[in-house]
Amino acid sequence: MDYRTFFADRLRGLRDEGRYRVFCDLERQVGKFPKAINHRDGDTHEVTIWCSNDYMGMGMHPVVTDAISETVRRSGAGAGGTRNISGTTHFHVLLEQELSSWHNKDAALLFTSGYVANLTTLMTLGQQIPDLVIFSDALNHNSMIEGVRHSRAPKQIFRHNDPEHLDELLSQYDRDTPKLVAFESVYSMDGDIAPIAEICDVAEKHNALTFLDEVHAVGMYGEQGSGVAERDGVVDRIDIIQATMGKALGCIGGYIAGSADLVDFVRSFGAGFIFTTSLPPGVAAGALASIRHLRAHNELRIRHQERAATLKRRLRDLGLPVMDSVSHIVPVLVGDASLCKQASDLLLTRHHIYVQPINYPTVPKGAERLRITPTPLHDDDLMDHLVASLLDVWSTLGITTRQAA
Amino acid sequence: MDYRTFFADRLRGLRDEGRYRVFCDLERQVGKFPKAINHRDGDTHEVTIWCSNDYMGMGMHPVVTDAISETVRRSGAGAGGTRNISGTTHFHVLLEQELSSWHNKDAALLFTSGYVANLTTLMTLGQQIPDLVIFSDALNHNSMIEGVRHSRAPKQIFRHNDPEHLDELLSQYDRDTPKLVAFESVYSMDGDIAPIAEICDVAEKHNALTFLDEVHAVGMYGEQGSGVAERDGVVDRIDIIQATMGKALGCIGGYIAGSADLVDFVRSFGAGFIFTTSLPPGVAAGALASIRHLRAHNELRIRHQERAATLKRRLRDLGLPVMDSVSHIVPVLVGDASLCKQASDLLLTRHHIYVQPINYPTVPKGAERLRITPTPLHDDDLMDHLVASLLDVWSTLGITTRQAA
Repeated sequence: MDYRTFFADRLRGLRDEGRYRVFCDLERQVGKFPKAINHRDGDTHEVTIWCSNDYMGMGMHPVVTDAISETVRRSGAGAGGTRNISGTTHFHVLLEQELSSWHNKDAALLFTSGYVANLTTLMTLGQQIPDLVIFSDALNHNSMIEGVRHSRAPKQIFRHNDPEHLDELLSQYDRDTPKLVAFESVYSMDGDIAPIAEICDVAEKHNALTFLDEVHAVGMYGEQGSGVAERDGVVDRIDIIQATMGKALGCIGGYIAGSADLVDFVRSFGAGFIFTTSLPPGVAAGALASIRHLRAHNELRIRHQERAATLKRRLRDLGLPVMDSVSHIVPVLVGDASLCKQASDLLLTRHHIYVQPINYPTVPKGAERLRITPTPLHDDDLMDHLVASLLDVWSTLGITTRQAA
Repeated sequence: MDYRTFFADRLRGLRDEGRYRVFCDLERQVGKFPKAINHRDGDTHEVTIWCSNDYMGMGMHPVVTDAISETVRRSGAGAGGTRNISGTTHFHVLLEQELSSWHNKDAALLFTSGYVANLTTLMTLGQQIPDLVIFSDALNHNSMIEGVRHSRAPKQIFRHNDPEHLDELLSQYDRDTPKLVAFESVYSMDGDIAPIAEICDVAEKHNALTFLDEVHAVGMYGEQGSGVAERDGVVDRIDIIQATMGKALGCIGGYIAGSADLVDFVRSFGAGFIFTTSLPPGVAAGALASIRHLRAHNELRIRHQERAATLKRRLRDLGLPVMDSVSHIVPVLVGDASLCKQASDLLLTRHHIYVQPINYPTVPKGAERLRITPTPLHDDDLMDHLVASLLDVWSTLGITTRQAA
């Protein structure tokens, strides 16, 4: 075995397929969001970011940055241990209380990321509940897929957002078989939203637990911003809400919220929770400040939805192929990996606009796209510039995708 | 299936076995480390932490806290995306450069935690290298075990720190079979250290890749502090060095360092790297400042080793059962889960000393212990107090463990 040749060959393969990823080196700037400095070819350029998952700009908000700075100055950088061995700080305790209150659940549990929250919770339930069968939406995120896979519990994949198909699959098992239905509220690449109430109807009919990933929804939906389950009035029908503090909350880390015993069970048996250093106290303090601000400011959510709706309308009016999103996510179809990369490069170099190309395997081949995420801080001037730049790029590259349905 | 009853029963089982974990609610204080405030029963108490993995107190050091505060004020809280989608900041780029230089490797790659670094790297290599066989030390950390297990690559467990047994196992495979040997330098519960050179001899003889976890060594061993591989002069013989920024560096996050193509391969194929929000820029800036400080201050490492050696000697002189550690970790054997918890509780409530009990499954039943971690900031007065308090607790509880070999 020649390891060097093996790694080099596989990387060459990625390059040949146009799938080799080059990261954009950014320096975000408080007070200038969504503008940032792009370090490129030994030089720096000011660019406007249109693809951040800091959906509400909270990562730049003084209530968050002040909370972190003050906590770091007072309580230091890292937590210094796992949650069990000296790594539980008072900020973790307060944040878990706030999260459970926000989601109207008994308890919440922090993880180092949303990825680890999904992986650990699904793995733990799948491994520890004897004979559990997991029913998973076909478009679930990689972290859920890996959690289900590694649990080695039997799984059934239901067609995306299709409660009838879920019903069919659940009907194969008798009522006493333990079951869990795992799905997301907002699907981040297409921007569609699950029919949560209908999925709960089906799950309840078959006595299945429900696990809802709200990572692309917390902070952004519902009167208090706790997600689509709140907006739809179905929080009480979800057994486990999972989400992140790394997107609309502007920080990092993940969590689950649910009944006291269920959360305590994952706390007690989840390897990916137990055997890892806990989040820095500053991160916990920042996330706490972010949630409190977002809970109290529904006008940010109204503005956010208006920005997304306005951008979708303007792009559609000009014949650009906006995909059929019902959320704050604005995907524009290109349909070819190489063209998609060229469009992104041209936006960056000619127009100083940064939108990362989304290619396979994140989306299917032929569905390559630019995924645009307007925040409440993207004003009309920035939007004018984006729209004109997209038109120029479409025309320069001769992109001929038809408007998506 | 009655889910509520199931969860409640399993939790009751943990309580009955004395294994139910209660987290100690702490508020660390810059300038007072290793002292902290303990929130308990609605009241607060000042305690001395003797079980932190902030081994060098860097989480409290102004070079680290200033770097974080300044970066948060300038560049915000979270990164706002995955590394590929707007989440690579200039601080990530600089930190990866510093890490590769520190470990004398071509390249380094950041992960959200050491746990995720181990899990993702071992999973990715085990899944992607056809026919790879993984040889894993019997006492490897849970994150490595899970990585190997989820990769579904065939595995062989060699006896702890036993190059001869490893040689036997490797000899079962021909030279062309891809192989990887995964082990740690410092094992965190016993404080023993791997014979790295001998393990490399065996690995090289059989053309196996070497993967070394230095999470309990970086910052603390070697002239520049990059770990035991540096101290032993064997860095060039290790293909993949894995470590954390959450312990001696005082922050959070993990990484690997290795050849350019190997690191690029994990970057390109590792799901646990690709599909997760990247570390906050402030964390990257803090870790960078911490490494630069630790590289330049070998006297901290000399002081650290002196503190550990002094504590071990003093406890042994008094007949307390210090286990056979050759590192900075000072495990004191209790040998009973309930006694271990009582000893910890008494230290906290009577003596204001916090040392978490270490029980099964973290250590085998009968090997329950107090795991003490002196830092360079634990001075003679604090040590006098600890030694006297341990004697009092041993006498009060009538603990009769014989001195460990």
